Parts: sequence; C-alpha cells; structure tokens
Amino acid sequence: MAITLRQSDADFETRFAAFLTTKREVSPDVEATVRAIIDDVRARGDAALIDYTSKFDRADLATLGIAVTRADIDQAYRDADPETVEALRFARDRIRSHHARQMPKDDRYVDPIGVELGSRWTAVEAVGLYVPGGTASYPSSVLMNAVPAQVAGVERIVIVVPATGGVINPLVLVAADLAGVSEIYRIGGAQAVAALAHGTKTITPVAKIVGPGNAYVAAAKRQVFGTVGIDMIAGPSEVLIVADSDNDPDWLAADLLAQAEHDVSAQSILITDDAAFGKQVEEAVERQIKLLPRAETAAASWRDFGAVILVDDFDAALPLVNRIAAEHLELAVADPEALLPRIRNAGAIFVGKHTPEVIGDYVGGSNHVLPTARSARFSSGLSVLDFVKRSSILKLGPDQLRELAPAAIALAKAEGLDAHARSVAIRLNM
Amino acid sequence: MAITLRQSDADFETRFAAFLTTKREVSPDVEATVRAIIDDVRARGDAALIDYTSKFDRADLATLGIAVTRADIDQAYRDADPETVEALRFARDRIRSHHARQMPKDDRYVDPIGVELGSRWTAVEAVGLYVPGGTASYPSSVLMNAVPAQVAGVERIVIVVPATGGVINPLVLVAADLAGVSEIYRIGGAQAVAALAHGTKTITPVAKIVGPGNAYVAAAKRQVFGTVGIDMIAGPSEVLIVADSDNDPDWLAADLLAQAEHDVSAQSILITDDAAFGKQVEEAVERQIKLLPRAETAAASWRDFGAVILVDDFDAALPLVNRIAAEHLELAVADPEALLPRIRNAGAIFVGKHTPEVIGDYVGGSNHVLPTARSARFSSGLSVLDFVKRSSILKLGPDQLRELAPAAIALAKAEGLDAHARSVAIRLNM
Repeated sequence: MAITLRQSDADFETRFAAFLTTKREVSPDVEATVRAIIDDVRARGDAALIDYTSKFDRADLATLGIAVTRADIDQAYRDADPETVEALRFARDRIRSHHARQMPKDDRYVDPIGVELGSRWTAVEAVGLYVPGGTASYPSSVLMNAVPAQVAGVERIVIVVPATGGVINPLVLVAADLAGVSEIYRIGGAQAVAALAHGTKTITPVAKIVGPGNAYVAAAKRQVFGTVGIDMIAGPSEVLIVADSDNDPDWLAADLLAQAEHDVSAQSILITDDAAFGKQVEEAVERQIKLLPRAETAAASWRDFGAVILVDDFDAALPLVNRIAAEHLELAVADPEALLPRIRNAGAIFVGKHTPEVIGDYVGGSNHVLPTARSARFSSGLSVLDFVKRSSILKLGPDQLRELAPAAIALAKAEGLDAHARSVAIRLNM
Repeated sequence: MAITLRQSDADFETRFAAFLTTKREVSPDVEATVRAIIDDVRARGDAALIDYTSKFDRADLATLGIAVTRADIDQAYRDADPETVEALRFARDRIRSHHARQMPKDDRYVDPIGVELGSRWTAVEAVGLYVPGGTASYPSSVLMNAVPAQVAGVERIVIVVPATGGVINPLVLVAADLAGVSEIYRIGGAQAVAALAHGTKTITPVAKIVGPGNAYVAAAKRQVFGTVGIDMIAGPSEVLIVADSDNDPDWLAADLLAQAEHDVSAQSILITDDAAFGKQVEEAVERQIKLLPRAETAAASWRDFGAVILVDDFDAALPLVNRIAAEHLELAVADPEALLPRIRNAGAIFVGKHTPEVIGDYVGGSNHVLPTARSARFSSGLSVLDFVKRSSILKLGPDQLRELAPAAIALAKAEGLDAHARSVAIRLNM
C-alpha cells in the first residue's frame, strides 16, 4: 500500500516535506575498492582488465578477446529476433530525427563598436558509453546514449559492456551497430571506466564517459571526472501522474506499475483531485501487480515509495508538482495545455491521456535519460548538448582595443592584477 | 626559465605527453573535515554559521549580521572608486548583451505521423554564487557568474562571501548589486556551501551552486552535488599563445605574465615557428617579471609550468593546440581566421594581435569562467545554459499511440519489462 497525503490536512506540509527528502537508495561506500581498481588498470592495462573480468564477470577475455569484432556483431543480428531489430531501427530513426533539432548553432557577430564576438560548437572527439550487463542491459538505453553522440558528430563512440559469463545481449550489439558505435569492448565495472578514462594498449582513451551503472561504476565515474567529462549520476527512476477523475483507473495503474517494476527504489506518485478516483487507481494497482512477472519488485516499490496525493484542485497541485520535480510527469487532465506553461521542474512531460510515459522510454523520439531524484530543479535530460562544447571567440582591432582598454585597465588595477593591466596598456603605449 | 620543447626532436612526443599530464595542483584531502562542517550546519543552522565564521574568518556575525543589508550596499557604493564602479557598469552591460544571445529557444513541433514533440527551457529557480574572500575576491567574477543567471531569468541569485576580519570588498557588493543579486550573506568556506544547499533559518536553500573557491569549497560542492546542482570545479588557469615572428615580443610576454601572475599553478605556453623569436619572448618575460608587484608568483609559475614549443609550421601546431585544449588560446598569427575552423578544443579563442586575453577577463562580453586543465576537450565556459534546464514534451492522440505501440511493446518485452508493455497495450485493448 502506498501512502496517501491529503493537501487539506493540517500536517500536510510536514508530511510532504518528509516525503520529498526520503532517501530511496543507499549507496554503499566503494570509494577505496574503486580507487584500487583504477590504479591497477593504469599500471597494468589490458592484463588488469583480463584479470578483473575473469573474477567479476566470469569471462575469459584472453580467449574471447577484449574487443567485440564485426563477426560478433553480424552473429548478433542473426541471433536477434527480427521484429525486435526492426523496432530498434524504428526507434533509432525517431530518436535521430528529434535530436537533430537540438544541434546548437554557431554565432558570430560584430557589436556596435566593432568588436567581433562568437560561439563555436564542436563535437567531443571521443565518448565512452557504459552499458550495464545482465538484466539491466537495455538496448533502448544504448540508442538513447549513442544516437545523440552520433548526431553531435562524435567521431569515436566506444561502448563497454560486461560479458557476464562470456555473453553479451545480442540486442545490445545490434543497437550499438544501428547507432553508429565504432568500438565495443567486453568489460564492465570500475575497470571499464578506468580503461576509458586512462586508456590501455587495446583501448584508446576517450574524453567523456556517459551511461548508467551500479555503485562501482558511479564511484569510478566520479573519480575519473576531471580527466574526462561524465554525465549526471542516475538515481532510481520515478513517475508523477497528475490526473482528474475522467480517466480509466486501469490505464493509470498500468503507468504507475511500469515505473515500479524497474527497481525496488523506483517511485510512482499519483496526484488527483478526487479521493474516490484515487482509491480506484490504488485498487487497480493491487489487481494488476499480481499479473506481473516482476510483481515482487513492483510491489516493494509501490509499498515503500508509492504515494497518492489528494489536492483540492490542480492550481493547488502545481507547487507540489514543481517541488517533486519528477523525472517523468504525466498530465492526464482535461486541459493539460493549460497546466503545461506553469510546470517549472520536470525531466519529461507526457501530455494528455494517450501519452503513456513508456512511449518516451522507447519510440517517442525524445531521450529517456532524464534527471532523477528531484534534480530536474537544476538539470536536463541527455541531449546533443552533452556531446558538444563551445569555444567563445573574441576579436578586436586596434580601435576596439583602444575603446575597451580604460575599463579593462581600471578593473585589473582594482583587482591588484598589474600584469593584466600591462598586457592591455603595452599595446597602446599607455 | 620555462621549458622548451622542439617538435622536430626525436623525443618530442614523449616529452610533450609528459608535459600534458603534469599535475599543477595537489588538492589536499579535506573530505572528512568538510563532511563534519556540512553535518554541523545541517544540525545547528545559523548558530553553526556564526561559530565557523568567528573561527575561520575572524568576524562576529552575531553583531554584523549574516545578511548584508541595503544600507551596507549603499555604503559600498560610497566607499568604491567611482571610475571602477563605472568600469563595472560598462563590463556588466557588455556581458549582458553577449549572454542574451545564448538564451536557448523552446521548440514544439508535430512530426509526420502527428506526434507532438518539444523542448521547453525554464530558469533554475534559485542559484547560489560562491565568491572567495581576501585577494581572490574578484568583482569581475561576480559579474561573470551573476549576469548569465540574471539573463537566464533566475529569480533568486544569492551570494555568499566571507567577510574576512569583518570586511567585504566594496566592489564585490557593488558588482553584485549591478548584476541583480537578490541576497548576500557574509559566510564562506564549506559552511557557506552547506547553508546554500541545505538552508538555515536565515538562508533559504538554492537549487544550484556556482563559483570558484579553495579546496574546502570545492570538496563541499562535490559533497552536496545531487542535493543541488554545481558548476565545474575550476582548476588553475592557463593561456596558450600561437604566434609567428611578426609580433612584438613584449606584447606576448605581457600576455604570458598576465596568466602567470594569477597563481603559482597557472600555466603560460607559447607555440611559435621561429626559435629566435621564441627566445626574444623569453627574454622579454624575464625583463618584465621584475616590474611586477606579483613578481614572485609570476616567476614561480613561469619557471615551473611555462613552456615554449617550437614547431616547423602552424599546420603541425594544430594537433598540439587541440591536445593542450587550453582555457585561453590566443592566435597571434598573420591569418588567424585560417586556423580558427581547425581549432577543436579551447575554452575561449582570442583572434589576432590586438585581442589580449585580458580583454576577455573583463570587458569583451564573453565569459571568463572557462574550462581549465584540458577540460575544454569535453566542457564549455559558463553561459546562460548553466542556469536553465530543459523539459522534453511528448503528446500523442489515439492514432499516434496505435502507430507507435507495436515497436514500443516489442522493445519492452525484449527488455523483460512486461508492465511497460501493458501500459501501452491496455490503452488499445491489445
């Protein structure tokens, strides 16, 4: 049973604030272990990768090879279900079309006094994408991470994926190939992150590492940050559904459970203005849970972190929605467009009753790598912008330098930086 | 004496690679100290701030007040040199004009099958800006951090600045006021970061913290990351000048020293195709160092980290420039525009002989908060984008859902996520 919070109750603010700050995941402290692995990979390179993979993934890379070959990829196409390959291709195309619109434009202009200014965007040269092994080895996530990099113009897109027991999900290899990935290595864990950041004989280092992983992977990414760029550290997933009573409770229950089945730390929240309807959705959740192969996970998530929040009206709901700052927000109300401009914090917004969040996980075209755990207050989902960087450009002639010099010199002197002042003054014989 | 590397030497690649990976700064391990301070501020709030400020900054906030008042700011205007205030205003206006062009545009469109997609940008609601105390309390940095936040539409821009010995540089208060800062608090160190992230009775928490600081501040920012967003962790500054012999050696020496005077860990590099000219610049550096109030710092930086790299021609220089990935890059060559499109990695590019980097520090209009320590390979300077975030938007009708459903269901099933498949299928009675 999820908790119920009623906005009209006297203790609502206290309970809601506590609900917001509930930790859903405790990260084990693996800093020291990870540091030792990274140091070892830096010292011993490929040999360390082979040892760790033998130990952690029960795979013999001395025989299998560290690198996945073209023949391995061709075999993966033959091993994969053709309908699923077609679905991946369909998803790839939609993701590519949407992300192409995100490419930022260069800017170069001359200001009123003749100073030329500009911004020039270039792709990161090489990106590593971490793909988890086992059941969390999602081909859709390969597309969501690799396609934006390809659209950005990244030349080297490198995947690392542990071959648990020697095996890699063929759909991961197919998705990688469809997304233009150039190199794939059978390694995972902190050792894979270390190899991407520092390089080995087999693996040339990259400039940025993205993609989800367990606590070891997250810690390794944090530790190599600086040497390479990293993306956000993904937390457990969440959905917030804002719904009026003119909805089929079964539809919304299915959406809440689609989130809950991910992980015992996932969170599903319903905000509604109708207590009886809220009850119906809860009953539908209980009915549907029993039908799910991942019933145990979904039930634990719903029991521990699920919530039904009852509001007087949707005006009153908006501040709550913005404070929750959900990764996924469904607006299942009569006039969602009226609410939309007032939503400030949300990773992705699914508008109207025929837009289940799951469409965005796979084939909507938008990215499913989104800010979790309230971080939509300050960050965005993955996009082409994560794979490009901007150089600013400044160009003065002697006249412009003369015009800007007095203020620059005054500020440099006020900051006690005389060499700064001199670097301007010397050009003007000042 | 800076080192000299000659590209035509047999051991150049080895020496250049070692030069690139030289650590210029060792961060002391202050994790545990910082963690204790953060915990204490969370537990005791304002009282902890008063205690730490008394201890570390020798200032009595119980008397002075934690918050800077309007009267304090008015007094700062009276205490400040009017010409410098005017220079700050001039810089503010130029920074504002340039950054206004960076505001990303919302996008909403309908794809060929009728799916509506979009991206909506909103400002971060509240941002904290850390301003160091003492000699590193640069009013120009206040402008560079606060103006983009203001342009982005951030409602609450909060400054924390230690009042060392009870005093805050009046120009910092003036710059803050000119840049639309809404609150200023007399606190610094890890305790200030903790207060911004977690809030106290006096200070409402923010959603993101930006700005430079010492090792304690950097560690505190890393520790509160997740609760709030943070900007990049700034390292020591660097300049790379690419110059032909048709330059005044004194001008370039002045630019190299403007970087070197910042910090003993700063780095100044000259790449030239003329050994004799390189020698002249070195001689000019030695001459000019003696004239500087910060001679000792500049000399240490130039001796320990300065470099002159001799190349056969500028074609051969380009790969080196991109590997160095300098924070600041000056192109002092006859045809800088020919090199520009081939520059891949640089925080800011200063084009031509009349564009000393210092102009960009103050009044060029572009931002002076830039990626250091080779991180221009994967990151960009501070911009309006750091103060906004994007929500993606997806909207389907029944027809679009029917069209996208088969691929979504196929992928969900292939990933073993049955509740995902159900959430789509249930809407179509599939």
